[in-house]
Amino acid sequence: MTDRAVVLLSGGLDSATVLAMAREQGYDSYCLSVDYGQRHVAELAAASRVAAAMGAIEHRVIHLDINQFGGSALTDRSIDVPVDGPAAGIPVTYVPARNTIMLSLALAWAEVLGCRNIFVGVNAVDYSGYPDCRPEFIRAFEAMANLATKAAVEGKLLRIHAPLIDLTKADIIRTGDRLGVDYGLTVSCYQADEQGRACGVCDSCRLRRDGFISSGIPDPTVYRHH
Amino acid sequence: MTDRAVVLLSGGLDSATVLAMAREQGYDSYCLSVDYGQRHVAELAAASRVAAAMGAIEHRVIHLDINQFGGSALTDRSIDVPVDGPAAGIPVTYVPARNTIMLSLALAWAEVLGCRNIFVGVNAVDYSGYPDCRPEFIRAFEAMANLATKAAVEGKLLRIHAPLIDLTKADIIRTGDRLGVDYGLTVSCYQADEQGRACGVCDSCRLRRDGFISSGIPDPTVYRHH
Repeated sequence: MTDRAVVLLSGGLDSATVLAMAREQGYDSYCLSVDYGQRHVAELAAASRVAAAMGAIEHRVIHLDINQFGGSALTDRSIDVPVDGPAAGIPVTYVPARNTIMLSLALAWAEVLGCRNIFVGVNAVDYSGYPDCRPEFIRAFEAMANLATKAAVEGKLLRIHAPLIDLTKADIIRTGDRLGVDYGLTVSCYQADEQGRACGVCDSCRLRRDGFISSGIPDPTVYRHH
Repeated sequence: MTDRAVVLLSGGLDSATVLAMAREQGYDSYCLSVDYGQRHVAELAAASRVAAAMGAIEHRVIHLDINQFGGSALTDRSIDVPVDGPAAGIPVTYVPARNTIMLSLALAWAEVLGCRNIFVGVNAVDYSGYPDCRPEFIRAFEAMANLATKAAVEGKLLRIHAPLIDLTKADIIRTGDRLGVDYGLTVSCYQADEQGRACGVCDSCRLRRDGFISSGIPDPTVYRHH
């Protein structure tokens, strides 16, 4: 039997690359997107397209009204998305406990599927301001997960795969390009319009654009601003 | 300034007691209930009553359609709730990754509130079959949480309080009774009716009923079966 993996899929560039890596490693992928009231709903449409294009077995969207807590420019409409380039420290686009919550939901599905592998596209290089993108966080989550579940009690240990954690954006793009990812299907922009067109000026667009330039691979993204 | 605490409140006996303990320790309580598609919606109504009665500052309900994953008699209507007494091993009423998910949501709210304390009513004595009710799970979650957040990066450590973890049901009831908990407001039953009346025969009802008998405190619960 082919091994199963739950893959957290946002619809952005990073998680599309992770899905391609899981496929290359021979996993049957069960993709999970979390609709946590983010502004960029276009990402969820992108996630569906990417899951289909990459041969995922299933794609589920789970709704979670975490935006009621506020605290992030990505879920709270009273906070503006910065468009003047990255500031020092942890950005206002940080969503409280986001990776903890997404990994917990993936853990629940993995447990029901009887699957011992979770893939997540966290990256410590380009998002150094996010505490839950660091390797020590991923290891601590894995240790906790291995005490949390029925399967763990029975000795079947779960592994959290974070294959992008040490890669630059350019390396990620080169990897995905080699594995056949169509980045034209993905949306990274924090304020994409309904057609998925990118603003070109938010931090996520800047990272993506610079990543394509450094990688030497043509950028298929349609930017509204240049 | 009084310290704030996020208190996970299900509407059952245990979490009502925890809320009373948080109040006794001087915390301002922000109560969080998770509507994860459980059968016993009456518990959520109970949670609101308990939060109001115990002077909580705020009570939020977060909706999460985890029932789409299936796997538990509490969220999947195709699995029957057992009524013939506890079976060996992990019960079918176990909800995959439930405590991990609920603590993650509490963590998100705590982060937005700038609060360093989370209270949860897990108990290792009467629920020995649930992996995520063990002290080692709580410690591992706390360690993970202290790597996950902005506040943790800034050195403000979070504490997960699980004050019931070593108590018997009778001890929990005696504690709550001393602190003025009105257990008539709470609902423990896995299949309570819309008025919150308990079946009297599910594992949760059996634990509750036996707990009251052992505690010597009168049981205010209305049971449909005797």
